[in-house]
Amino acid sequence: MVEEIKASELNPEEFISRKIEEIKSTVGDGIAINALSGGVDSSLVTMLGHKALNERLLTYFIDHGLMREGEPQHIVDLFANLGVKVELVDARDEFFSALDGVEDPEEKREAITRTFYKDVFGRLVRESGAKYLMQGTILTDVDETIAGIKRQHNVLSQLGIDTEEEYGYETLEPLIQLRKDGVRKVAEAAGLPEEIYNRMPFLGPALAGRVIGEVTPKKIETVRKATVIVEELLADSGAFQYMAILHKDRVTGMRDGAREFGQQIEVRCWESIDARTATPTRVPHEVLEKIADRLVNEVPGVVSVTYNVTAKPPSTMEAV
Amino acid sequence: MVEEIKASELNPEEFISRKIEEIKSTVGDGIAINALSGGVDSSLVTMLGHKALNERLLTYFIDHGLMREGEPQHIVDLFANLGVKVELVDARDEFFSALDGVEDPEEKREAITRTFYKDVFGRLVRESGAKYLMQGTILTDVDETIAGIKRQHNVLSQLGIDTEEEYGYETLEPLIQLRKDGVRKVAEAAGLPEEIYNRMPFLGPALAGRVIGEVTPKKIETVRKATVIVEELLADSGAFQYMAILHKDRVTGMRDGAREFGQQIEVRCWESIDARTATPTRVPHEVLEKIADRLVNEVPGVVSVTYNVTAKPPSTMEAV
Repeated sequence: MVEEIKASELNPEEFISRKIEEIKSTVGDGIAINALSGGVDSSLVTMLGHKALNERLLTYFIDHGLMREGEPQHIVDLFANLGVKVELVDARDEFFSALDGVEDPEEKREAITRTFYKDVFGRLVRESGAKYLMQGTILTDVDETIAGIKRQHNVLSQLGIDTEEEYGYETLEPLIQLRKDGVRKVAEAAGLPEEIYNRMPFLGPALAGRVIGEVTPKKIETVRKATVIVEELLADSGAFQYMAILHKDRVTGMRDGAREFGQQIEVRCWESIDARTATPTRVPHEVLEKIADRLVNEVPGVVSVTYNVTAKPPSTMEAV
Repeated sequence: MVEEIKASELNPEEFISRKIEEIKSTVGDGIAINALSGGVDSSLVTMLGHKALNERLLTYFIDHGLMREGEPQHIVDLFANLGVKVELVDARDEFFSALDGVEDPEEKREAITRTFYKDVFGRLVRESGAKYLMQGTILTDVDETIAGIKRQHNVLSQLGIDTEEEYGYETLEPLIQLRKDGVRKVAEAAGLPEEIYNRMPFLGPALAGRVIGEVTPKKIETVRKATVIVEELLADSGAFQYMAILHKDRVTGMRDGAREFGQQIEVRCWESIDARTATPTRVPHEVLEKIADRLVNEVPGVVSVTYNVTAKPPSTMEAV
C-alpha cells in the first residue's frame, strides 16, 4: 500500500532532496536507465535521476513513430539545453511492424507495450549493463492498474524479467506517492521549463491511442495533422488535456457536390485536477466550429468532427 | 429538368387544388397506392392522394422494425383521426433478415430499399391491382440523386418494374417541384397537424441509418432508446433536425471503477432551411452534458457521447 502525498501538503524542494538521496543510496555507484517520453512524469524522473547520478543515468527517447509533429527531436533538444543528455532511438519500423493488422485495442496496447519494453527498451537495458530501472509511475497509475483500467506497471515483468532477485534488477519509482498535480509542482521546482511541468498528459501509446482500430503510418499521419490543429486552437483553453481521435467508423460526407465516404475526428478537451475524474470543457461553439472547419479543410479524408460531451466516469479521458 | 417552386413564391391553397386536379385527371377511375412513413413528404402525398381519390388511394405503413418508439401505431392513429385509412404492415422479420450480417452502408441501404420496394411494397402493389404509384420525392432528393449522394428515386425500377409502358404502371410525384420548406407550408394548408408539418426530416432507412455497421434488433433497440432521450431534450431547440447515431467503434470507459469497453452515441442537431446546407446548432453545453448524462445512465452499454460540430458540406446530415 503506497501512501499518498497530496499536492497541498507537498514541499517540492524537500521532496527533491529526499528523492535524490534515495536514488543515490539505492544505485550507489551502479548505472540506472530510463525511457523519456517528454511527458511530465518521465521528464521529472529524468531530472531527479540526472541530479542524483549525472552520467550514470542513461536516458533514452524511443521514437516509435507515434509521437506528435516534431516531438522526438524537440524533447531531446530541450533536455540538451538543461544539460541532460538523451539518446534518440529510431524504432519506428519495429513498432509499425508490431502494429500491422492489429485491430483490438487491448492487443494494440499489448503490441506497443511489448515492443517498447521487451524489444526496444529491453534490448537497451540488457546492452547497457544498467541494473536500476527508473520509472515515472504515479499513484493514479497504481489505482487504475488495481481497478483493471490500465495495464500493470511492473516494468520488470514487461521487460521479460521475471523476478528482481533472479536477475538483480531493481526498479525505482520516485513519483509513486504523487498525483499529477504534485508531479507538476515538483517538476517546476526541479528546474524543468513550463512547457514540461504544465505539459498536457500524453499517454504511453501516444498517437496509437488516438486511433480507433488498426494503427498504420497513414492513420498516424492523419491523427498527427489533426493533433496539431486541435492543440493550436485549444492552447488557450486552459484545459487539463485535449486531443484528437481518429475513428475507424466511416461516415457519409460530400465534397464538390458528390458523396465522399470519409473519416471522422473526435475532439476531447477535459477539465480535471488529477485525471481521476474529469468533465468536458465548455469550449465555445465558435471555437469548436473553427476546429471542425480547419480539420475538414486541412486533413485529407476527414469529413466529420465531433466533440465529446461525456464526463469521466463513465468515459475515460482517452478513447483506446 | 424540374422547375423549382420556391416556398416564398408558393400559394399553398392553389398548389393543393392544382395537384388534386392533376392526380384526378391522371388516375381517372383507377387505383393508386402509396407508402406512408409519417414524414412530412409522404404524409402530404397521402393527404393529396386522399383528397383526390378518397378510397381509391391505398396507403400502407410498412413497419420495418426500424421506426422510433411507438411510431408505427401512432402515425396510423393520427391519420385515422384525419379520416384517412392507413394499413399497418408488420414486415419486421423480413427487414432484419435482409440486414443480417450487412456491414457496408451502401449494401445496407440497398438491402433496406430492396426489401422495402421489391419485396414488401412490391408485393402489396402487385396484389392491389393499383397501377398508379404516388411518391413523395422532393427537389432536394432529385439534386442529391444527380450528385450521387442519394440513391435514385425511380420507384418503378426499385419495384423491379423495368418500364412503365411494359407493365402500365405510372408514378406520381406531386411534390417534385418543392423543397422541404415548401412542403411544410403546403402540408399545413392541407390540414395536417403541426406534429406532421413541422416534423423533423426522418430518413427512409429510419433508425438503420442511425447505426454505423451491421444493423441488428439489439442495436436498433439501443439507438431507439437514445433517440427518445435526444428528441426529448432537444425538442425546445427549434432546430431543423436532431438525431442520435450509434457508432460501431468501441471506446474505453469505466463503470464501478473497472474498465468497460463500451458504445458511443453521436448526437447531431442541425440548423437548416432546406437541408441543402446546414450548420450545427449551438446547443448550450449544459444541455449537451445533460443529454450525455442521461444516455450513459439510461441506455445500456453506452459509455461515451459526442456532439457533431461539422457543417454540411462536407458533412451530411445523416451519418450513413
